[in-house]
Amino acid sequence: MAEERVVYVGNKPVMNYVLAVLTQFNEGASEIVIKARGKAISRAVDVAEIVRNRFMPNVDVKDIKIDTEELMSEGRSVNVSTIEITLVKKE
Amino acid sequence: MAEERVVYVGNKPVMNYVLAVLTQFNEGASEIVIKARGKAISRAVDVAEIVRNRFMPNVDVKDIKIDTEELMSEGRSVNVSTIEITLVKKE
Repeated sequence: MAEERVVYVGNKPVMNYVLAVLTQFNEGASEIVIKARGKAISRAVDVAEIVRNRFMPNVDVKDIKIDTEELMSEGRSVNVSTIEITLVKKE
Repeated sequence: MAEERVVYVGNKPVMNYVLAVLTQFNEGASEIVIKARGKAISRAVDVAEIVRNRFMPNVDVKDIKIDTEELMSEGRSVNVSTIEITLVKKE
């Protein structure tokens, strides 16, 4: 059974998240989901691309989903876009 | 045959691109590809989500691709992530 783990991408430098993904793959994860919201979405795509192109050519993008979340901010609701990028290690 | 058109998302306000997508669907396009690079990737996801959720519930995300482009900047090459979001109008 595939073991799925999640890396949440925020505002830290992109290499922090690349390292988190590489570490989880090296610890035996077969699938990793990279999740981000709002402006961090661009960074999440960078993380997936850097892992694949620079470090792990045996990793593929299995699926990409986009969605919208409703957050409460100062008493009113704000819509924010989200992304989930699923990376899978080829055997 | 599906007529495919492209909307490039850059640094203008998100509603400019939403309007471009709505206009092309209303002119008869059945598929539209939203493309963006670098920091505009987050805005491209916003465009797709706003079109679907607020204006055209009969539009689905058909496919999402991410990739890397190599640009030359001041004599050296820089990698930049890209996204392509394909929207399709359900009949």
